[in-house]
Amino acid sequence: MLSKNKIKYIHSLELKKNRKEEQVFIAEGHKLVEDLMGHFPCKLLVATSVWLSQHPGVEADEIIEVTQDELSKASLQKTPQSVLAIFKQPQYTYSPNDISNGLCIALDDVQDPGNLGTIIRLADWFGIEHIFCSQGTADVYNPKTIQATMGAIARVKVHYCDLVTLINSLKDIPVYGTFLDGDNIYGKSLSANGLIVMGNEGKGVSPEVGGLINERLYIPNYPMERTTSESLNVAIATAVVCAEFRRRLI
Amino acid sequence: MLSKNKIKYIHSLELKKNRKEEQVFIAEGHKLVEDLMGHFPCKLLVATSVWLSQHPGVEADEIIEVTQDELSKASLQKTPQSVLAIFKQPQYTYSPNDISNGLCIALDDVQDPGNLGTIIRLADWFGIEHIFCSQGTADVYNPKTIQATMGAIARVKVHYCDLVTLINSLKDIPVYGTFLDGDNIYGKSLSANGLIVMGNEGKGVSPEVGGLINERLYIPNYPMERTTSESLNVAIATAVVCAEFRRRLI
Repeated sequence: MLSKNKIKYIHSLELKKNRKEEQVFIAEGHKLVEDLMGHFPCKLLVATSVWLSQHPGVEADEIIEVTQDELSKASLQKTPQSVLAIFKQPQYTYSPNDISNGLCIALDDVQDPGNLGTIIRLADWFGIEHIFCSQGTADVYNPKTIQATMGAIARVKVHYCDLVTLINSLKDIPVYGTFLDGDNIYGKSLSANGLIVMGNEGKGVSPEVGGLINERLYIPNYPMERTTSESLNVAIATAVVCAEFRRRLI
Repeated sequence: MLSKNKIKYIHSLELKKNRKEEQVFIAEGHKLVEDLMGHFPCKLLVATSVWLSQHPGVEADEIIEVTQDELSKASLQKTPQSVLAIFKQPQYTYSPNDISNGLCIALDDVQDPGNLGTIIRLADWFGIEHIFCSQGTADVYNPKTIQATMGAIARVKVHYCDLVTLINSLKDIPVYGTFLDGDNIYGKSLSANGLIVMGNEGKGVSPEVGGLINERLYIPNYPMERTTSESLNVAIATAVVCAEFRRRLI
């Protein structure tokens, strides 16, 4: 049985301010909740009796058994499934070695929570463990972001920081970005480490961060001579760039 | 001045049933409306006086000047801009030659309207002119799809058909799809024509359509030996595959 106060509490977590204060985030659905269990401490688990009977050893500070109807009232999703969980936000740290030893992504004010979640998911696929976000980037704990990660949030570490300060702290590490006047990525030599910077959906990379990018890339359109008003979604561009980096190593 | 009836009419177009009956779709925002003007007949244009003064020659069956407040009431977007337009749905035809002479995409029950729009946008970037959708695929005229195309809907033709019938009608044309047990795409020879089939977000390609795919591909994750529960969003996978096809031709 789910009290009105609990439903109100769950809905309050749609707001970043409340998630930050409580240091928690919401995840919904079988696959996602199962993927995150064990990675993040679970503060509250709301599930149907069927789901609970299928997961007898599940651990959470509080477990509430509900009917499908009750779950629908608590859910933030259009098509609620049989489980909703509130997890504790992790606290991550990073060192410059993480960037000099591997490939990382930096996001300069990516605004759409779905794009952020999709980028976290593809980073996981391409073995990228750290994503650095400008303070103006969407909140990684936005429910839309969490759902779009499809569980990758358990494996990819997302940090918020000032990107100019971060990049200035790096020594001899290539910093990549995509630009309409960049070099054809297919003809460039790409390193196995470094930072790939992707920009805001409308404005691209900010001038301050752009000035620190020393490897300017371009994803060729096809046929190349055509000039239309076409463009690529930021998550799509990130995927094509990451695939090209990894392709060289396989 | 926007009447209550007009606002009601605009909101009614959130439903596929009404869009189909009226044979129209909605687009919002400067860039999108400007991109679509000239490509599709405009039935109704709702804009602020500033937008209208900046576009003196604009043509539509009906033009209504509104305040920003009125536009917000009509808008389906979270952050309404200064223009909203209702366009006539186009009627497209295709011939088997379109597939034998070029690269096309088939979508087998892709459900998310945003994914569909993003795929249309990337198809435009990669010079793919035709997308064939199963009847269970999201509606291309869903406002979320239209917004996500960022104008590419003016250049890419989307057809709804039975994919099994379509593929069976093709002669000697390679039909590609991605599978977890497919061949590493980077090591495969890829043709400049043919059909790339992408499946539903949860279930992938249906068995009926899957049985007709003669070129089974795999997008390598990194590092390849790792086995986690990771996966790729369907629009991301489509982008990586299309980029790889086009990369060979540049």
